[in-house]
Amino acid sequence: MARIWDKGLPLDQRILRFTAGEDHRLDERLVSYDVRASIAHARMLQAQGLLDDADCESICAELERLSAAHAAGEWSIALEDEDVHGALERRLIDAIGATGGRVHLGRSRNDQVLAALRLYLRDAIEHLSSLAAAVIESLEQLAATQGAIELPGYTHMQPAMPSSVALWARGFAAELEDDRRGLKRVRERADLNPLGSAAGYGAGGLPLDREATRRELEFAATQEPVTAVQLSRGKAEAALIFELDLLIGDVGRLASDLLLFYTAEFAYVSLPDEMTTGSSIMPQKRNPDVFELVRAARATITGALVEALEITAKLISGYHRDLQRLKAPLFRSIDLAEDVLAIMAHALRSVRFRPENIKLGPELRAAERANSLAVEQGIPFREAYRKIAAELNKQRR
Amino acid sequence: MARIWDKGLPLDQRILRFTAGEDHRLDERLVSYDVRASIAHARMLQAQGLLDDADCESICAELERLSAAHAAGEWSIALEDEDVHGALERRLIDAIGATGGRVHLGRSRNDQVLAALRLYLRDAIEHLSSLAAAVIESLEQLAATQGAIELPGYTHMQPAMPSSVALWARGFAAELEDDRRGLKRVRERADLNPLGSAAGYGAGGLPLDREATRRELEFAATQEPVTAVQLSRGKAEAALIFELDLLIGDVGRLASDLLLFYTAEFAYVSLPDEMTTGSSIMPQKRNPDVFELVRAARATITGALVEALEITAKLISGYHRDLQRLKAPLFRSIDLAEDVLAIMAHALRSVRFRPENIKLGPELRAAERANSLAVEQGIPFREAYRKIAAELNKQRR
Amino acid sequence: MARIWDKGLPLDQRILRFTAGEDHRLDERLVSYDVRASIAHARMLQAQGLLDDADCESICAELERLSAAHAAGEWSIALEDEDVHGALERRLIDAIGATGGRVHLGRSRNDQVLAALRLYLRDAIEHLSSLAAAVIESLEQLAATQGAIELPGYTHMQPAMPSSVALWARGFAAELEDDRRGLKRVRERADLNPLGSAAGYGAGGLPLDREATRRELEFAATQEPVTAVQLSRGKAEAALIFELDLLIGDVGRLASDLLLFYTAEFAYVSLPDEMTTGSSIMPQKRNPDVFELVRAARATITGALVEALEITAKLISGYHRDLQRLKAPLFRSIDLAEDVLAIMAHALRSVRFRPENIKLGPELRAAERANSLAVEQGIPFREAYRKIAAELNKQRR
Amino acid sequence: MARIWDKGLPLDQRILRFTAGEDHRLDERLVSYDVRASIAHARMLQAQGLLDDADCESICAELERLSAAHAAGEWSIALEDEDVHGALERRLIDAIGATGGRVHLGRSRNDQVLAALRLYLRDAIEHLSSLAAAVIESLEQLAATQGAIELPGYTHMQPAMPSSVALWARGFAAELEDDRRGLKRVRERADLNPLGSAAGYGAGGLPLDREATRRELEFAATQEPVTAVQLSRGKAEAALIFELDLLIGDVGRLASDLLLFYTAEFAYVSLPDEMTTGSSIMPQKRNPDVFELVRAARATITGALVEALEITAKLISGYHRDLQRLKAPLFRSIDLAEDVLAIMAHALRSVRFRPENIKLGPELRAAERANSLAVEQGIPFREAYRKIAAELNKQRR
Repeated sequence: MARIWDKGLPLDQRILRFTAGEDHRLDERLVSYDVRASIAHARMLQAQGLLDDADCESICAELERLSAAHAAGEWSIALEDEDVHGALERRLIDAIGATGGRVHLGRSRNDQVLAALRLYLRDAIEHLSSLAAAVIESLEQLAATQGAIELPGYTHMQPAMPSSVALWARGFAAELEDDRRGLKRVRERADLNPLGSAAGYGAGGLPLDREATRRELEFAATQEPVTAVQLSRGKAEAALIFELDLLIGDVGRLASDLLLFYTAEFAYVSLPDEMTTGSSIMPQKRNPDVFELVRAARATITGALVEALEITAKLISGYHRDLQRLKAPLFRSIDLAEDVLAIMAHALRSVRFRPENIKLGPELRAAERANSLAVEQGIPFREAYRKIAAELNKQRR
Repeated sequence: MARIWDKGLPLDQRILRFTAGEDHRLDERLVSYDVRASIAHARMLQAQGLLDDADCESICAELERLSAAHAAGEWSIALEDEDVHGALERRLIDAIGATGGRVHLGRSRNDQVLAALRLYLRDAIEHLSSLAAAVIESLEQLAATQGAIELPGYTHMQPAMPSSVALWARGFAAELEDDRRGLKRVRERADLNPLGSAAGYGAGGLPLDREATRRELEFAATQEPVTAVQLSRGKAEAALIFELDLLIGDVGRLASDLLLFYTAEFAYVSLPDEMTTGSSIMPQKRNPDVFELVRAARATITGALVEALEITAKLISGYHRDLQRLKAPLFRSIDLAEDVLAIMAHALRSVRFRPENIKLGPELRAAERANSLAVEQGIPFREAYRKIAAELNKQRR
Repeated sequence: MARIWDKGLPLDQRILRFTAGEDHRLDERLVSYDVRASIAHARMLQAQGLLDDADCESICAELERLSAAHAAGEWSIALEDEDVHGALERRLIDAIGATGGRVHLGRSRNDQVLAALRLYLRDAIEHLSSLAAAVIESLEQLAATQGAIELPGYTHMQPAMPSSVALWARGFAAELEDDRRGLKRVRERADLNPLGSAAGYGAGGLPLDREATRRELEFAATQEPVTAVQLSRGKAEAALIFELDLLIGDVGRLASDLLLFYTAEFAYVSLPDEMTTGSSIMPQKRNPDVFELVRAARATITGALVEALEITAKLISGYHRDLQRLKAPLFRSIDLAEDVLAIMAHALRSVRFRPENIKLGPELRAAERANSLAVEQGIPFREAYRKIAAELNKQRR
Repeated sequence: MARIWDKGLPLDQRILRFTAGEDHRLDERLVSYDVRASIAHARMLQAQGLLDDADCESICAELERLSAAHAAGEWSIALEDEDVHGALERRLIDAIGATGGRVHLGRSRNDQVLAALRLYLRDAIEHLSSLAAAVIESLEQLAATQGAIELPGYTHMQPAMPSSVALWARGFAAELEDDRRGLKRVRERADLNPLGSAAGYGAGGLPLDREATRRELEFAATQEPVTAVQLSRGKAEAALIFELDLLIGDVGRLASDLLLFYTAEFAYVSLPDEMTTGSSIMPQKRNPDVFELVRAARATITGALVEALEITAKLISGYHRDLQRLKAPLFRSIDLAEDVLAIMAHALRSVRFRPENIKLGPELRAAERANSLAVEQGIPFREAYRKIAAELNKQRR
């Protein structure tokens, strides 16, 4: 099987396996996006008179067919294909002959992979945002049904002032909305058409119409100049991982709260048996493993963020094969975030607060009393504060 | 000297020194912002009838005076003050007596520090953005004066296709514009009024007007519910550090290019003597240290990003003293980014490309020739590609 | 199929899938180690009179059989097994009946997984060390065959003083030896017997002989007290990832050198065609992708290090399900390091230096000349330095 | 004031300030070590006949004097000195004239800084290790005086099996011993003499005796070949930061335990008033800030680790100015670790467990009962486990 850049020279098998790496597996999710971008490119070539109508139709029809067949599980990318681009080009040429090679005019894998990635990111962001919305929905439901239950509001892990399940749940919901706005901003960052930049220096005199592919693929703008395209590799990827870090960080802190509330000593919440797991040695245990795994998830995403940031660090401008390594941390973060959000939306629905165990001591009202004292007696807050403190100190002794 | 939360109990000196940490030094930059937020709070208390007119005027006047005196270098925060809030409150009370304690009604250091930090971030972002604009300006000037000089466009560090100084400089300029848009998005994230949330659970029945302080401080919205405020600590901070990572990352890659171009073997650029430093042992050396230090700066910012993200990770909701540690990585990143941007805007102005040393071999036109061949002969690109490759292979042997 | 901690209560399928995660795939590599530790535990129980001879033989024989069958590809861990321990216990009981459950006396999955992991780490370290030795061997061979070729020694990427291929190759070889010593130190850290600590608090009054399993499994010492065992989770893992970071960092810098030497402008080395890959658009390209992917590998390991460190951060003492997430970054780092080392040992063998392109200018001798001047004329080095510098400055003008 | 590499050419003031950075402040701690290494170098030059006796004595005497004067606070490094080496060389020449410049024969700042750093690291490691020993001592004292108090042993933050204050404290003590062994291993890594490698390529034909300086400075071995020296920059630094990460990570988890035990709901420990701090708004609060700041410290060290690792990543071999940036994360980590260890050794001494609030439910004995049942009835552990579990389930309903 010939690789797309094959010039008839030998290639060391071990080198091939090492350089292809895990791309053939990672790229499965890019098949439909690469097809879509290829079709946009082909139609542009046709409009510019660089591809005749029959060839264009035959290329586009076969690409559509390959995409559907892939979605139906009829084929997958082989190691020898190297990546999604190789897999599609080879199958296209197998199916319609040398004509398949015409779609590569004015295009490099360097702009091709970015186009597919950005289209994928758009969908991934949409999906992640809707999963975050589902967690918010579960929190709102919790607030609606159990919101009136009083909770101590903590600072320094110490009871501080009165709070409630509603305030608790809606605080997290508000932060998840903040995270959803963050996701939307990443989409803006990635909303640029890379096609036409080819290997990073334009398409060598061909009369390409970059605006046409931009319109077709619904990018907000065309990325200019062409040299910016490869410099931008890794930035939108890292920006998404960063936003997922904040998002899963918020969800992880929600899990921390629940793990504390579920301790035997707090016993503020109960979880149904079907949500807890047992111990292999202690028959009595009902462990909240799901929230522990949620809490730990952020570590994986912070690691992926460092990985993505360091991949591009210090590289001179232009494309480098190093950039291939960006996919793994990106996809790992997206998949993990999806799992975590889905399970949290689900698990939150069976959390039950136990008001019988939740006591709010009178000291939680101390700040309020100092406020009242200051207002009623017209004394400075600091004076009122010291009076209440002195009173409480007396009680402690 | 009494600390503001002092209740007349002993405090271990070592504990005080450890917990105050370096806050008193870090907080110097927050003085004017804390004053501004305190004045907004005081005026709101006055409007709500919680502070009488004379007290409000006296508090605000003294705060303004303290801010001006600090700007003039007349005082600085002492370790015993613990932080900017303690320093101002103490000095306010020293100056106008117990009345100074009235401004703390309905306010905690928890919302106070966030208000000051967000006002500071707004200015810091503005400043960073203008420094990035200065680097862009230097790049544009380079493009304007030397842009026509041809450069090989590299992929894999190998000559790939023809490029130019203009394309090179403007690729970086475009990415720096992308980074400036990123900075602006951080400002949106931090554009929320925390005042009125007090310790994180509201102000215990006081009739505060959060909308009034929002208006006065020009925040886009009031952060709701109050429990979201402390949950959001660290997110805008990390978001700014992240954007600085991308920004200084781009500048670092620019430095990498220049370091490569400045090697004796490339010799594509010259630097004036006053921009290079010498060796302590080798008399001939003219080293481009400035670009090396720029290249290395991103490491510091990526480290600070990890630091900021991990500080809040896994914490239960509510304020924790852990959050104090967020200031150091934040300020460290901002200061470093300012230094790096300022020096790059300056240093770029004396970079001279040396066209006499830059050769573009005919192989850089190979893609263009394959394009032409495909178009002229109406053959698929892959076929044209193989023809040109075969021809080049023959020449190599 | 019953899970090993099943008490007859329902378990939410989505919770099961989420909590099991990718453990069933990751744990494949632990099968033989878990078998070995289980046999050691069984024999100890037998010696202590807690397991009769016949049961012990039947358990050990079946475990050996399962291990061999797994190595032969006859079975693999299913999602429903959750992990290697569940997979083995289930199969053991399926094969020999309820007796299979006797091996779990005095043991928890918490100490069991650590035992298996540490046995695995021992082998993995051995393997990594021998792969690093193979890279050293390739470097030594390079030094032996091409070592006499002169190279400029660079500082600040500028020619500094005379060096040679031998000095260059052996500098890296020395650092790889340093890394191998680092790997050995990790082995010391992990050389502790966790068995007998059960869930982290000992085996509830059973007369276990921890020294017996230590001897059998050849650990250097028994980990005491039992509460230290779970506290130590993640430390040896992180220590190995850290050492791999240094190791792959050194190899990555070797790749950086080669990528620079392979540029058209330096042209200090050639690579055979079978080691380079082509471009999909530029027919002339022979790209050194293998070294780019090696250079980028460290980013993945630094990311994994952050991931591993953050997983245990801030956790209270005792086992948490969070710890399960340690396996992924650990195995990812080991696998990547193995790939990178293997390909480098291989690729280095075909690197050819091109002495015809390597020129050492007379300025490389400037430090040597200053040295001689200082010695011969008996003047201070600083004076000699300034004389040579002045002379060189005159020549530049 | 002339810089030591000054050749009479102008240097841009902004460039100087940027490149010097914060080195002049950071280097204060290296003065005595640089003096010690310089004296070793001078004596070796003397023994080799490269420096006459009188000059050597005058240089060594003045260096000793400068070191003592610096320790006495009589001078500090100025920005114009750039770093410790410049500061000492300038003052040496000011004091004894041009003869002071003779000590630089056969030496570069590149090997000089490494020698000083390694001598410093040796002392820093010693100090950190003794501070860790003090924490262990406090833990042992706690175990000795309160060790008999029963504690629930937790897994998944749920009561699991019986434990005690002794087991709890000694588990941490054992891990801190592990960390001390880790520190010792770093010392081994840094125990190599860099002197004589000069800028990284040896001393240009001078008859230096590297073994003599090794002996004088008590390094275990001389680093060979010379090209390894600069390649090793950053590795011992990162290794120390890594070990501090584990160490402060263990201390941080100790703090997490105490913060949980100090919650009002657990109330397992009390802290004296002088160890807690108050709230600016809530008069009743006694907050355990010291343990929160300890818990958060690891984040700073993990950030510093990433910073140090990324600084050297991808650099070609040889010295680069990038390496200067290694000092900041190294010193920041050491200083923070010292502070945290000192405060913990101190704070632990006043922790009091409150046995009256600690209840161990009978379910903590469930594993023990299953063990007994298995042994007494001779049934498999899994069967005993299920019997006890069924019994406990009945009780729950």
